[in-house]
Amino acid sequence: MTDTPRANPGYKRIATEEAFATREMLDHYLKLVQDGIDDPGFQSLWGFYIQSDAARPRFIRDHLVDLGEKRLAHMDESGIDMAVLSLTAPGVQIMTRDNAVGFSVDANDQLAEACRKHPDRFVGLAAAAPQDPQHAAKEIERGVTKLGLKGVIINSHTNGEYLDDEKFWPIFEAAQALDVPIYIHPRGMSRDIIKPFVEAGLDGAIYGFGVETGLHLLRIITKGVFDRYPNLKIIVGHMGEALPFWMFRLEYMHEATVRSNRYESMKPLKRKMSDYLRDNVYITSSGVGWEPAVRFSQQVLGIDNVMYAMDYPYQYNIAEVMALDNMQIAPADLKKFYQTNAERVFRI
Amino acid sequence: MTDTPRANPGYKRIATEEAFATREMLDHYLKLVQDGIDDPGFQSLWGFYIQSDAARPRFIRDHLVDLGEKRLAHMDESGIDMAVLSLTAPGVQIMTRDNAVGFSVDANDQLAEACRKHPDRFVGLAAAAPQDPQHAAKEIERGVTKLGLKGVIINSHTNGEYLDDEKFWPIFEAAQALDVPIYIHPRGMSRDIIKPFVEAGLDGAIYGFGVETGLHLLRIITKGVFDRYPNLKIIVGHMGEALPFWMFRLEYMHEATVRSNRYESMKPLKRKMSDYLRDNVYITSSGVGWEPAVRFSQQVLGIDNVMYAMDYPYQYNIAEVMALDNMQIAPADLKKFYQTNAERVFRI
Repeated sequence: MTDTPRANPGYKRIATEEAFATREMLDHYLKLVQDGIDDPGFQSLWGFYIQSDAARPRFIRDHLVDLGEKRLAHMDESGIDMAVLSLTAPGVQIMTRDNAVGFSVDANDQLAEACRKHPDRFVGLAAAAPQDPQHAAKEIERGVTKLGLKGVIINSHTNGEYLDDEKFWPIFEAAQALDVPIYIHPRGMSRDIIKPFVEAGLDGAIYGFGVETGLHLLRIITKGVFDRYPNLKIIVGHMGEALPFWMFRLEYMHEATVRSNRYESMKPLKRKMSDYLRDNVYITSSGVGWEPAVRFSQQVLGIDNVMYAMDYPYQYNIAEVMALDNMQIAPADLKKFYQTNAERVFRI
Repeated sequence: MTDTPRANPGYKRIATEEAFATREMLDHYLKLVQDGIDDPGFQSLWGFYIQSDAARPRFIRDHLVDLGEKRLAHMDESGIDMAVLSLTAPGVQIMTRDNAVGFSVDANDQLAEACRKHPDRFVGLAAAAPQDPQHAAKEIERGVTKLGLKGVIINSHTNGEYLDDEKFWPIFEAAQALDVPIYIHPRGMSRDIIKPFVEAGLDGAIYGFGVETGLHLLRIITKGVFDRYPNLKIIVGHMGEALPFWMFRLEYMHEATVRSNRYESMKPLKRKMSDYLRDNVYITSSGVGWEPAVRFSQQVLGIDNVMYAMDYPYQYNIAEVMALDNMQIAPADLKKFYQTNAERVFRI
């Protein structure tokens, strides 16, 4: 067994949840941490990543800001043909409204510049500031039509608020009108739920991220966003934040709860929970280079709904690429997973 | 296709997460609701179930308190040979210390009486009051040695506290010494995390239950409980509250987090996350009568770790029994799922 993925496997490997940061944003994060910003999820995550001298946070800091040689060398080494880049969590969503607007524009400009320099290797998603939904919608339009970006990155909650709140719906409006997907990525958990997670060290990628991002998508679905925006596409990573595994129970209990009229906030929907998950939701394998979960998700969502992602630089792990290359699925389905689903969803 | 499960399928169907309540406890719940007890998870769940006139809560109230003819008729109708009964959530864990102690003893006496009357149909798990860990340990011993009960039911958190807190460890000590499993069942989410779930109607069985119970088990594992009690068995329902699906990421991120020394509370463990899930954890299919999730869990945990449960009367659904009878797995494995795993784990 070699220790690098095989060349020319019959498909391009497109990695769809790859993170970058601008230097200016990391400097700003350092200042927010040092100023003691009152956001326990941000302090837990970036208080560690921005200041620790351990090997993992140093690696991550160094490679987040590289949109050139180091990143391309790692992509070559791990057989990744193309990376779909997005501003790392929490992006601008930790900032004041004015800073968020300014940093989102700057990050999109820097990202577009890197994509222009390396058009065969990089595409990008537009950052946006939910703190100002009208500006966010305009910036998404600028990102897609002027800068050539391929979708939108939203790093979960914004100050504890979720996109099911109608004030944020200009973002959905813009994404549907432009026919680009919105990728909802985890960030540090909101102050409203972090306590029993963070006190046990479970607030981050190990579990809390998945909980909060899964909750976010469920709030969007059950609020009826896809009834209002039937062509909207939302992507979640980390094998769908486990929602494919919950699908049966989500559907059974949603129907039972609506029928019993238990909540003012949970009204009947036009379609079933599983319909939304299959028709409007796409998932990626970020952080989960594990054949059983990939195949399960392909089985229950559909072969067209599951895309490859590495989660670089948070999970730079070549062995996972090789494991996924060797999945016991039809070559045509492996090509969908690595290449053609991403080409279709992001219109690459 | 008939509309009842086939008789004599070659295995006994043992349903392992079946709920009951004493009339006295439901009366006490009604009083707690009416007195406006300050527990948002309890108010959300029992404020509805105990007072609503909708069909679902009426059915549940009526059938929780039946440990005789109505329940047996439903078991006959759905092909269930034997039910492993446990006091419904939150059991005594919502009560004052003194009430919890008294109600746990009474519930165990009533349950044992029903099991004596119907020894071929019912076995039971002992309730215990974590509010008084020493009493809980003694009551578990009484329940097992004097009353013939087969394990312990713990309805997740107790006033926002989880069993990883060492003050609760007499409960683990007793269960290991008696060689009986502890079933950790969801209850209304704690006040520390319920807000963004309950405002969207997502705090109950649809999603929040799984989040909090998954968190509970992860806190137990990462605290090192199984290093201290290596023969302890813990059961979680609802297809393992999705932890089998998260297993790869749990293991990767636990190792990365420990290595980087990020949390004082997350120390190295003797074994891997997947080892604990496979060696100490058993899961049931309660609420998830869905072949893909059952087979996935059998694949990644092991065929001996997955047991059948119906979740009666919360999910009385004969079609699910028929669907699981028809799973495309070897007859010997189907027998393990329905019968022999439960016989071994509960020593029936």
